[in-house]
Amino acid sequence: MTLSEESTQRPRARDLDITLGRLPCGPLNAITDVDGVQVGHCTLIQGEGKLVPGRGPIRTGVTAILPHGGNPYREKVAAGADIINGYGKCVGLPQIMELGQLESPILLTSTLNVWLVADALLEWTLERNPDIAITTSTVNVVVGECHDGYLNDAQGRHVRREHVYQALEEARSGPVVQGAVGAGTGMSCFEFKGGVGTSSRCTPDDSGAFTVGALVVSNFGTREQLVIGGVPVGLALPKSDSSTPLLPDGGSVMIVLATDAPLTSRQLTRIARRAAAGLARTGSTHGQGSGDFAIAFSTTNRHPHDGKSWLRTREMVAERDHVMNCLFQAAVEATEEAVIDSMLQAHTMVGRDGHVREALPIGPLVELMHRHGWPEVGREWLP
Amino acid sequence: MTLSEESTQRPRARDLDITLGRLPCGPLNAITDVDGVQVGHCTLIQGEGKLVPGRGPIRTGVTAILPHGGNPYREKVAAGADIINGYGKCVGLPQIMELGQLESPILLTSTLNVWLVADALLEWTLERNPDIAITTSTVNVVVGECHDGYLNDAQGRHVRREHVYQALEEARSGPVVQGAVGAGTGMSCFEFKGGVGTSSRCTPDDSGAFTVGALVVSNFGTREQLVIGGVPVGLALPKSDSSTPLLPDGGSVMIVLATDAPLTSRQLTRIARRAAAGLARTGSTHGQGSGDFAIAFSTTNRHPHDGKSWLRTREMVAERDHVMNCLFQAAVEATEEAVIDSMLQAHTMVGRDGHVREALPIGPLVELMHRHGWPEVGREWLP
Amino acid sequence: MTLSEESTQRPRARDLDITLGRLPCGPLNAITDVDGVQVGHCTLIQGEGKLVPGRGPIRTGVTAILPHGGNPYREKVAAGADIINGYGKCVGLPQIMELGQLESPILLTSTLNVWLVADALLEWTLERNPDIAITTSTVNVVVGECHDGYLNDAQGRHVRREHVYQALEEARSGPVVQGAVGAGTGMSCFEFKGGVGTSSRCTPDDSGAFTVGALVVSNFGTREQLVIGGVPVGLALPKSDSSTPLLPDGGSVMIVLATDAPLTSRQLTRIARRAAAGLARTGSTHGQGSGDFAIAFSTTNRHPHDGKSWLRTREMVAERDHVMNCLFQAAVEATEEAVIDSMLQAHTMVGRDGHVREALPIGPLVELMHRHGWPEVGREWLP
Amino acid sequence: MTLSEESTQRPRARDLDITLGRLPCGPLNAITDVDGVQVGHCTLIQGEGKLVPGRGPIRTGVTAILPHGGNPYREKVAAGADIINGYGKCVGLPQIMELGQLESPILLTSTLNVWLVADALLEWTLERNPDIAITTSTVNVVVGECHDGYLNDAQGRHVRREHVYQALEEARSGPVVQGAVGAGTGMSCFEFKGGVGTSSRCTPDDSGAFTVGALVVSNFGTREQLVIGGVPVGLALPKSDSSTPLLPDGGSVMIVLATDAPLTSRQLTRIARRAAAGLARTGSTHGQGSGDFAIAFSTTNRHPHDGKSWLRTREMVAERDHVMNCLFQAAVEATEEAVIDSMLQAHTMVGRDGHVREALPIGPLVELMHRHGWPEVGREWLP
Repeated sequence: MTLSEESTQRPRARDLDITLGRLPCGPLNAITDVDGVQVGHCTLIQGEGKLVPGRGPIRTGVTAILPHGGNPYREKVAAGADIINGYGKCVGLPQIMELGQLESPILLTSTLNVWLVADALLEWTLERNPDIAITTSTVNVVVGECHDGYLNDAQGRHVRREHVYQALEEARSGPVVQGAVGAGTGMSCFEFKGGVGTSSRCTPDDSGAFTVGALVVSNFGTREQLVIGGVPVGLALPKSDSSTPLLPDGGSVMIVLATDAPLTSRQLTRIARRAAAGLARTGSTHGQGSGDFAIAFSTTNRHPHDGKSWLRTREMVAERDHVMNCLFQAAVEATEEAVIDSMLQAHTMVGRDGHVREALPIGPLVELMHRHGWPEVGREWLP
Repeated sequence: MTLSEESTQRPRARDLDITLGRLPCGPLNAITDVDGVQVGHCTLIQGEGKLVPGRGPIRTGVTAILPHGGNPYREKVAAGADIINGYGKCVGLPQIMELGQLESPILLTSTLNVWLVADALLEWTLERNPDIAITTSTVNVVVGECHDGYLNDAQGRHVRREHVYQALEEARSGPVVQGAVGAGTGMSCFEFKGGVGTSSRCTPDDSGAFTVGALVVSNFGTREQLVIGGVPVGLALPKSDSSTPLLPDGGSVMIVLATDAPLTSRQLTRIARRAAAGLARTGSTHGQGSGDFAIAFSTTNRHPHDGKSWLRTREMVAERDHVMNCLFQAAVEATEEAVIDSMLQAHTMVGRDGHVREALPIGPLVELMHRHGWPEVGREWLP
Repeated sequence: MTLSEESTQRPRARDLDITLGRLPCGPLNAITDVDGVQVGHCTLIQGEGKLVPGRGPIRTGVTAILPHGGNPYREKVAAGADIINGYGKCVGLPQIMELGQLESPILLTSTLNVWLVADALLEWTLERNPDIAITTSTVNVVVGECHDGYLNDAQGRHVRREHVYQALEEARSGPVVQGAVGAGTGMSCFEFKGGVGTSSRCTPDDSGAFTVGALVVSNFGTREQLVIGGVPVGLALPKSDSSTPLLPDGGSVMIVLATDAPLTSRQLTRIARRAAAGLARTGSTHGQGSGDFAIAFSTTNRHPHDGKSWLRTREMVAERDHVMNCLFQAAVEATEEAVIDSMLQAHTMVGRDGHVREALPIGPLVELMHRHGWPEVGREWLP
Repeated sequence: MTLSEESTQRPRARDLDITLGRLPCGPLNAITDVDGVQVGHCTLIQGEGKLVPGRGPIRTGVTAILPHGGNPYREKVAAGADIINGYGKCVGLPQIMELGQLESPILLTSTLNVWLVADALLEWTLERNPDIAITTSTVNVVVGECHDGYLNDAQGRHVRREHVYQALEEARSGPVVQGAVGAGTGMSCFEFKGGVGTSSRCTPDDSGAFTVGALVVSNFGTREQLVIGGVPVGLALPKSDSSTPLLPDGGSVMIVLATDAPLTSRQLTRIARRAAAGLARTGSTHGQGSGDFAIAFSTTNRHPHDGKSWLRTREMVAERDHVMNCLFQAAVEATEEAVIDSMLQAHTMVGRDGHVREALPIGPLVELMHRHGWPEVGREWLP
């Protein structure tokens, strides 16, 4: 049984009739519902037992998000970012914030691996743009991270160039594998197994009929904080012996938001700001040692690298209450559901030194939700 | 029956066994649990019927928060702020952010009244510090606002100097009157009656045994967004005929956080950042037109106006995971409960042009909460 | 002799062959070279002798800058801001930064008068937009300030509604009166008389042929810091007996930049950031107590208050090195020259308690500049 | 003749009687005048002729700045940063800004090499702290960059682990080699040869008798912008055939400021903000493609990694006008002089594809300065 088979055997929130929020999700309920966005993973699982720094056990990986199928350096997209809690090593933010543009794929990986992965992403970009730093400008690669050291040999920085290339090459539209894959492989969330999660929302026709998609790598929180659909799940579920708090500063969450709404970087910065509200709905308080970062980009309208102006396929949206509020709501809901799905989709994993992260137990969860009125509660949310 | 009698007749969340969050609250469950903090209101309710701009009907007021019983200009306190959504007219933020100090009381009032109130606060400060702008520096007064124009003659700016002075003079320690009083008089929250709310939390002894208090003026949200204790109350409660969305950009929320933890301005800025998570738990997505601002100050350690250094009564807290996480949790929970109490404590109000804001209906709310497992749910949250 | 006659008798920098920077200035060498921009002053000079707080002597005023001849609330313009040193009371920045728009005139005045002036500006705006806060949103008025308390009865806040209205009504295109007028009346700069200054720059045809204009109210610096055209004028000029440092925190400078380049708010924020470099060229180090703020707006492309999108008359500029660098250079040079002109144009003034601010002495200045190679130096700067 | 011999043969500004600013410099006129600060370089010069990406010619290097002689991870220092123009790839800023601490050496290098160097710095840190990411938190390494691609094979990323280690191991107190060494090897400034420069300033006894040191890697500006001591040197010097503008976005400058003043991170952020004024005095307008970053740290008071609070050896400075203004002046002047020295100390260099960066010509410069009244001008600046 392969890992991805494993993942598909666990349900998503919607499979359990847990419908979070009021806006409808897109056909895939994934960031790839935003036309053109592609996602790819490379997952590294190897060895077990005692930690030998530099050797293993290995429980890590890398996830690639491409804003479109073309060359992002040649066709830049508008972007914004929000540093929710800057205790993290995310690479590439100052230039996104200054120029309001994204010109590379976004990679997500393990904290100490972030710089090697950035260098590999540079190499991949140089191959496709050999004029960089010779006859044209340099490139701002973007890599986010969470710390998977509870399960993984983090010092080993096992994600190497070939793994980065593999994630980039396997990136595609369509369904996204979630859970303990790619950058999510070794992550923990609310002391359960965390990982990659994704979700999407569609805004009504009278608000532009836009799509907003979120992809998260979840690695934060203490067990008693976890809330799902308003139910204090973390407190109510029986405590397992293997539940252990994260190591010091072990937390973090990376959130990537994509939309086809033709927004400016200023507006995308506001979208990114709302990701924190999605986290808060799951119980997060943006813990002291948790590097929480959100990056948002728009796939509509592109800026050619050598062009004099933006290629506009659609007029920018002005700040209309209705339109912006729907986009904000979409960003919040998609982030919330992406976090919950990242846990639901992840299987129990044993890592270094026999550390165990148990998967969120489906049966007890469903029972608990029923006790609190679900799935009827969720139905009340529907329009 | 006076207004304050009215207010005391409606329950607080805890009176309904709705215990939000896990940390215990202080004896008053109010911002005044932070030693030295004083709160005073001046409430203006006059006239009814058709709006005559400049005349009425009047449904407004002002609320004063004093960081301590002394002269805040002579004994400044460390402070930080977070602009959650900058669509607002809050006065005094740049200097708080640059110098990390608060040197005046914080006043809260109606949006268009903010500048007159600031001028009145200046006058009050000049009377107590006649050397200002003559032989010593100027003063940075701080005034926040929400837009009460749905019920109030907002153009009239009816809060005048005498009202500001009254709020300042009536400020005291002890219980805080909540609901449709002071700055909260004309406010709406989730299309119900909003207003002033307050709450507090205490951190465990091994995390410093600190107190964090929140006071909010709530004036944001659409009905379907409202969540209490995880229950989608806004959707589930029967819709009243009088429920109407806020006017364009009508929203806003001002959050003031006080603590006796001896924090630096940088740390207080991080505390202020967490207020947004408290809002998110009530359903907020920081709407487009909602000016959401948080200001946090510490009452421990003061900076004498003419002094060479800070008067330290207690060593500053370094960033320890445990201590900061408890303070963050406290800020989130106190903000959440302050918003809910601001609604629970507010009576139905009829304002300009017969506009009605109905109070959150207690009976149906309790019934609804029971259907979702409360108050047992809340008990699960307790340590 | 009227005040404006007085002002015209003193030279501008260019009259002395002091040409600062390399880009050519516009026909008026003023912010009004940017098509549509209007400027108006109201100057208040009354009484002399001993300070009686609330009575006088009065050396103050207000200056109004209108982004265009229409109704700025109905036709908003893109804007950005930079807080160089946030020790100041500037009103209206958070909303400019969040929404990237300016929807009111910009007024400049005396520090403690800033809130009364903001309220008067609100009233002026309400008269022109009676639907504000009733059937449409509120309005974000923008008022900057410097502290004129060395010469003026600052506590008196003598700028009242009628003066604000007068400045707004007298605002027009064409030449701008500089020096000790309007908001500049009581200001001091490098311990000389300061006040209002303005300048402009034009970018080359191959960089868009745009105009950038600056208007400053100068009120900062110590004498020994002053540099003009690279010459350490402050140190070299004979020290007068009347030269006295500013009061504690007496400093500040407000910089308003206007351009017809069709920029986004993000780009305008970058323009505003460059104002600090213009200040630095005059010797400023952004002193501890000096509130230094820059606001930049573009007159091209407007956002109708009720519109769904921006009215574009010209395609936005993408970030092209050449174009942006010319705009940056223009912003720096116009700011520098505006500061110098604010001093050159201001006459000696005697204020409260016999405080004297001497005008920058023209004869010694010219002699000094000649000793350092001027005006030949300046000619080297020319293309 | 070795490279460092070469460097010492060219004069510093003070050797030419060009004294920039009014405050006295420390004994070494270097960042190492701040007690405990250490600097080390590794310089890579190899090959000539046609560029073969990945092979050479190589004109690059790395410079290390250590805040003290101990283990910076175990003894963290307070720090702040300012992003003057965020078009750059500087690594480590979000965590400095969030936590207000520096916990690693600061390395400076070539733009595309920044991530490999960061990874090497991580490795160096792991060797000294093997518990990182296993039993304690991760580490925030800090690496700044400028783009040396005009002379160097930038794509080649020739700075490898051994070079990083060498720079770190050679770091010491005492005089600092400047010019085309370490990270400055391949840099260009105002179309002349740029590189590493350093300077320091001492504040008066009545302002604390503190030292502020600056170290820059200069790589920005067009020739006509260059100003030295107020003289428009760039325009006046005869234009050489080899003068060529930088490549697109070729610019950048990294500024590191150190001080023994016991400042908080908020205050250090304000110090960092003033670096831009130092750049402006040399003619910089913070060009569109120039990533301009400043990092400031204080060596006094340290935060033990596992400690509960800061180790205070000296009481923190409150915001006193006199003290802060002297520190600001010191930061501005040290930055200005460090940029000028970076050029004066650098020899002409021929790099890839025969690209030449000529050294600033000393003879013509001195003659030009004399024509403009120097060195007498500089003497006027002295107290």
